[in-house]
Amino acid sequence: MLGLMQEWPLTVDKIIDHAKTNFPRREVVTRSTEGPITRSNYAAVWENAKRATNAFRARGVASGDRVGTLAWTTDRHMEIWYGAMNMGAVLHTVNPRLFPEQIAWIINHAEDKILFLDTTFIPIVEKIAPLLKTVTTFVLLSDRAQAPAGAIPHFVAYDAFLHGHSTDAAWGGFDEHTAAGLCYTSGTTGDPKGVLYSHRSNVLHAMMANQTDGFGCGAQDAVMPIAPMFHANAWAITFVAPMCGAKLVMPGPKLDGANLYELIEGEGVTFIAGVPTVQLALLNHVRDNGLKFSTLRRVAIGGSAIPEAVLRAYEDDYGVEVIHAWGMTEMSPIGTFGKPHPEHVKLGHDDRIKAKLKQGRAPFGVELKITDDDGNLKPHDGKAFGRLMVRGPAVARAYFKNAGAKNDKGECLEPCGFFDTGDVATIDELGVMQITDRAKDVIKSGGEWISSIDIENIAMGADGVACAAVIGVYHPKWDERPLLIVEPKSGAHPTRERMLAVLDGKIAKWWMPDDVVFVEKIPLGATGKINKLALREMFKNYQLPTTQAAE
Amino acid sequence: MLGLMQEWPLTVDKIIDHAKTNFPRREVVTRSTEGPITRSNYAAVWENAKRATNAFRARGVASGDRVGTLAWTTDRHMEIWYGAMNMGAVLHTVNPRLFPEQIAWIINHAEDKILFLDTTFIPIVEKIAPLLKTVTTFVLLSDRAQAPAGAIPHFVAYDAFLHGHSTDAAWGGFDEHTAAGLCYTSGTTGDPKGVLYSHRSNVLHAMMANQTDGFGCGAQDAVMPIAPMFHANAWAITFVAPMCGAKLVMPGPKLDGANLYELIEGEGVTFIAGVPTVQLALLNHVRDNGLKFSTLRRVAIGGSAIPEAVLRAYEDDYGVEVIHAWGMTEMSPIGTFGKPHPEHVKLGHDDRIKAKLKQGRAPFGVELKITDDDGNLKPHDGKAFGRLMVRGPAVARAYFKNAGAKNDKGECLEPCGFFDTGDVATIDELGVMQITDRAKDVIKSGGEWISSIDIENIAMGADGVACAAVIGVYHPKWDERPLLIVEPKSGAHPTRERMLAVLDGKIAKWWMPDDVVFVEKIPLGATGKINKLALREMFKNYQLPTTQAAE
Repeated sequence: MLGLMQEWPLTVDKIIDHAKTNFPRREVVTRSTEGPITRSNYAAVWENAKRATNAFRARGVASGDRVGTLAWTTDRHMEIWYGAMNMGAVLHTVNPRLFPEQIAWIINHAEDKILFLDTTFIPIVEKIAPLLKTVTTFVLLSDRAQAPAGAIPHFVAYDAFLHGHSTDAAWGGFDEHTAAGLCYTSGTTGDPKGVLYSHRSNVLHAMMANQTDGFGCGAQDAVMPIAPMFHANAWAITFVAPMCGAKLVMPGPKLDGANLYELIEGEGVTFIAGVPTVQLALLNHVRDNGLKFSTLRRVAIGGSAIPEAVLRAYEDDYGVEVIHAWGMTEMSPIGTFGKPHPEHVKLGHDDRIKAKLKQGRAPFGVELKITDDDGNLKPHDGKAFGRLMVRGPAVARAYFKNAGAKNDKGECLEPCGFFDTGDVATIDELGVMQITDRAKDVIKSGGEWISSIDIENIAMGADGVACAAVIGVYHPKWDERPLLIVEPKSGAHPTRERMLAVLDGKIAKWWMPDDVVFVEKIPLGATGKINKLALREMFKNYQLPTTQAAE
Repeated sequence: MLGLMQEWPLTVDKIIDHAKTNFPRREVVTRSTEGPITRSNYAAVWENAKRATNAFRARGVASGDRVGTLAWTTDRHMEIWYGAMNMGAVLHTVNPRLFPEQIAWIINHAEDKILFLDTTFIPIVEKIAPLLKTVTTFVLLSDRAQAPAGAIPHFVAYDAFLHGHSTDAAWGGFDEHTAAGLCYTSGTTGDPKGVLYSHRSNVLHAMMANQTDGFGCGAQDAVMPIAPMFHANAWAITFVAPMCGAKLVMPGPKLDGANLYELIEGEGVTFIAGVPTVQLALLNHVRDNGLKFSTLRRVAIGGSAIPEAVLRAYEDDYGVEVIHAWGMTEMSPIGTFGKPHPEHVKLGHDDRIKAKLKQGRAPFGVELKITDDDGNLKPHDGKAFGRLMVRGPAVARAYFKNAGAKNDKGECLEPCGFFDTGDVATIDELGVMQITDRAKDVIKSGGEWISSIDIENIAMGADGVACAAVIGVYHPKWDERPLLIVEPKSGAHPTRERMLAVLDGKIAKWWMPDDVVFVEKIPLGATGKINKLALREMFKNYQLPTTQAAE
């Protein structure tokens, strides 16, 4: 028997409608790409989004068509965002930090019909325009007067794009499973894969993310997403803010400490969200200039693990609550929040800080489990670690055009129906999850797993060490054994013996690296993380001293 | 094109699963019907809910079958609640405050197969058992040892009902539109009508209700629903608390000030929710005994308009934030929250109190509009009033068995697809809604509407007035004109002239009552509200002094 409640499809047009009805004058403030801070509000964003829908329809964009953006976090980006999604078209945010060839590949793969770009990205688009096979119109997100001439074909300025279109346009009215957004995730190997969000997943994800123990934003808040809109939907904040009526402050292209601080203080920002590197830049600016935060109360940090110094600086020095968040593009992106568990509130200060460094617990709408390589469940005891699997209404089931399919339905799911995050983690009896490694970096020794990150963290703390990495190296008896690779600080000379002594007693005996090697420079990837692929290549024929005994 | 996110039906089994996984030891504390305070937790509630599912299946209860409860807010009630819903059966909470004949009618209409009852309600069930046509088993929510003998047939005690059943039972896995709960609403006329909630509506409603500007509860909270589970799902709190991991304190049968206060202080309650009358009783107890609240921070008040004294006592005297809530059974029940609009935060104290007395703004997931009798939209200007219409995923589309159908699809909706609340309200340009009257109490004078409540509120404040009511009385020229009916305080003698003088200048000239009559006692309904139906009957032939001039 079915219930008798109303049909009310979860489509994102209702989010901006809600803001327009209830918070028409609530401000949307932008550091524009041209430089000046500009002021809009939800009613005006709604109106331009309506105009954008009409402009799309006039240019032949239909439901299901993709519209690409190479753009910063601005009010104009938000207008196109809702203008496209609300008519059933797919808003495809392209990450401008990729190589131009990758950008061209992604736009062609997505078959974007229109490409919006900020002036910042004119040089990229001039370069790739000849490669783009499906883009019929390029729209520069700038006024006509300021639009620079360039080698971009079929070019139109944003005000000309909207000009003459009415604010009367039909939105929504379709299946809530309709595609709304597309975001490519670039793994370390293979082509980028597109995550195709639905209206339903976006709405549910925003409601999940903004629960009290998540972002916890209300109408009194002024929120600033530092994570860009091309970084997994600005972590849902462009949905969350209009949904709850918060003032929205959009930092545009300038993500340095001084510019972020100016917006925070000038606009009374109470909540920000961004990766550790921008947080560090902001904190350095504040510390170096003897400033303080007068309105900021909460900061969500994710994208990579929070350095303890960043956590302590916000909480201890500035009284700003840190919300550790973990997730990934395939999760819309929120997976967990590091809010203290009720059983942890009585911990001492240092233990609470330590607890907060874990990735945290899943909000309602995210299920977590850990398994071994055969899919068997590992216990939630805070010690056993396994492949982290996730399930929920805002988790990917398949990639665009069935890329990376793992079954004959084109899905990217494990046989158990969960999505494999590629991370290795522990989960404790209170559901608190901690990432211990990337699955591909785990060292498999005699059928047991050794976490490279645990060893690295200890080794990095040793005197004279600039950087340290642990990789698995072939061993005839154990299959793999750990090799510790150390980059000494300039002028320092750490030794094999000292490094092993530092680890001794802090890790299990059988986790002890079989050898230590010193290199001038540990290779880093584009995002500043250790490039283990390169290290594994460098040491693929390395002979561990322990192999002879085994052979 | 559809998105590629996971299917994850919104079913309520996931709520209690979430609590069991992440908050297994979080307490569920109950003032038991037997008297003592009992302590359980989400893991134990989950286990007994699993046992209950197996017990239901063993007794032939299948998906779609109804299970009735005549029960207070307790952990056992919650176990049956999830045990029934999670297998696709329908949990039907019966309001024990109705007349026994109404209760029997409702249970027969719902065709409940099993009826659970607290010991409190043995006398009612003894009386109505012979009338019940579908109930095959009566389960007393008490231990076997304490179960009193009575004239109830097919009787089993709760521990015997669960006994021997395993905690391994399949839950969920069905369409999220599946019916989950049934709650009858008793209008002033006609038979009670059943609202049939779905899993989807319950899950979405809980997520909507618990946003920051709503209940705003997190895992650190200890919440106590004073509104009983038979009163529109305890305002969703039996869903909200396990969803966010809050400690749940259930007051059972004792809703007086002393018992509620003991639980609040003894259990560290931070959030309570209930109607104005219980709030008043609680406040009186606290004031009369010179007590204070040491942990209580927020209180949601709804069900009827908040008296200003209750609002001021909580906020001014005790520093407890009041969240004015408005809704109805057909809305699951939340319609609006009276949290301050960001444009109102700079108001002075008295103006903010005044703003809070309005019913407030809709959370995302509720749409409001006001219309005239012909369905034409009235402006959102805070002045125009009209019939309040609502739409959303947790609003009723039809009543059980198509009672009160307004169209040939059996729906109870207006032609515009909205549900008519039966209230008359204003909505301002910021979406803030204020109820001005019940639609049937509005006086229609020459095609224009006069709000009875506005006039009554002023008249009630006059010296010597115990109670005042305004009804529409036939008028040959204007169709209806207002008649003011006054119940003087004992020993007081307000006059017609004085009453009209009190109103003069405070309402529009054409709203002035055409006459004033004095009665010994204004009739009240079962819930303490003025019985206007009885008043209209009393004065149906009343001749206004103004009618002669018109004739």
